[in-house]
Amino acid sequence: MAIKIDILTLFPEMFEIFNHSIIGKAKEKRILDINTLNIRDYTLDKHKKVDDYPYGGGAGMVMAAQPIVDCIKAAKQSNKGKVIFLGPRGKTFNQNMAKELSKEKELIFLCGHYEGIDERAYECIDIEISLGDFVLTGGEMACIPVVDGICRLMPGVLSSSESYTDESFYDGVLEYPQYTRPECFREIRVPEVLISGHHENIRKWRRLQSLKLTKERRPDLFGKLQLSKEDKKLLIKEGLLK
Amino acid sequence: MAIKIDILTLFPEMFEIFNHSIIGKAKEKRILDINTLNIRDYTLDKHKKVDDYPYGGGAGMVMAAQPIVDCIKAAKQSNKGKVIFLGPRGKTFNQNMAKELSKEKELIFLCGHYEGIDERAYECIDIEISLGDFVLTGGEMACIPVVDGICRLMPGVLSSSESYTDESFYDGVLEYPQYTRPECFREIRVPEVLISGHHENIRKWRRLQSLKLTKERRPDLFGKLQLSKEDKKLLIKEGLLK
Repeated sequence: MAIKIDILTLFPEMFEIFNHSIIGKAKEKRILDINTLNIRDYTLDKHKKVDDYPYGGGAGMVMAAQPIVDCIKAAKQSNKGKVIFLGPRGKTFNQNMAKELSKEKELIFLCGHYEGIDERAYECIDIEISLGDFVLTGGEMACIPVVDGICRLMPGVLSSSESYTDESFYDGVLEYPQYTRPECFREIRVPEVLISGHHENIRKWRRLQSLKLTKERRPDLFGKLQLSKEDKKLLIKEGLLK
Repeated sequence: MAIKIDILTLFPEMFEIFNHSIIGKAKEKRILDINTLNIRDYTLDKHKKVDDYPYGGGAGMVMAAQPIVDCIKAAKQSNKGKVIFLGPRGKTFNQNMAKELSKEKELIFLCGHYEGIDERAYECIDIEISLGDFVLTGGEMACIPVVDGICRLMPGVLSSSESYTDESFYDGVLEYPQYTRPECFREIRVPEVLISGHHENIRKWRRLQSLKLTKERRPDLFGKLQLSKEDKKLLIKEGLLK
């Protein structure tokens, strides 16, 4: 049975992006069932308004609670999943969250706008997720990569060759450099070891490159690594560890 | 003159998302000139292939250097901006990066796929940006929020009311709760202070809520805050600081 995802938004047309590439294919194969609900369809305001001025003053408009709450209620009639709000107060999205949420069979995503939603709508929200420490024009821009990152881990979405890179990321190290044909491009040759056919040396070389890159560019990740005996040996040989 | 953004991708149709909402309006007003180039149009392979098996073995395909390098060269004929690659080895995107890049008049974005691009294509890349510590189906999914986060800061893109929330984010604290009409929703009333009309009390209440939320949900941000005298007083009064 298809995995059911409902996205509650003021801009349903933005989610046509999921008709392309890998997620698009999974929708065609009916592995994923991604629908949108337009929050504006649920407002009781006769002018179809969904936002209003904030109590206490200040610039920016606030999304009213009523259309959000009623839209969630409508989605829940056919979707028993958790309600996830994309907002700046949430936990920062990461691969572990993606992995956890990819086990679900149903999910509801709510896209707000960064001027904020009425606090009383939070009553209907189970989880708040932030994409990162930056401001976007709307929750849709955060919802797209979050849904993508979760869905690609759902069973059947990726082919076995596409699912390759997960392991290295789960490992907590950055990816090693990759090379493909031709052997010589603009006078730069592929490193000898990669065309040696010596699998053990290739594995070690790649691991060392990953460790080096992680140490250099992401000391925060490097600090959390549990280095194996071999890792330490590789790094010591390069003079990167004492 | 319009700000020029070229996006190099295998999925140009995904960027139709920028025809909507705030970015769409800025395009219509010719404040932003966002174009896509299809990397596949630049391959010299007779079967229009853009990827190949990695040297040294392993699952997953690697994007070849030639089509990427030639596509960048083509973009550079009319765009002198920095070349930004969306990739997992980059610095994690944040509001300061968005602010810095929003000062540019021209930018080129390159979307790869997470199986990786041939290392030799990096010669043509100026900056690598990572959206966060998670895996996506392709660089497009990271490019969209990054371009959005940068463009909304460019002059003329946001109206004055839309640009409201920046300040609180630049401040390093989470946003305070917002409320809009009606005064009573599902038996929950708007906090008294917000309808008091007492601006000074409203300001203090909001500041305290921001500090409380940040302390509770983002101790990492809270730890970096330079608390003012008033901040400390507010927190002490609530028993949140000694």
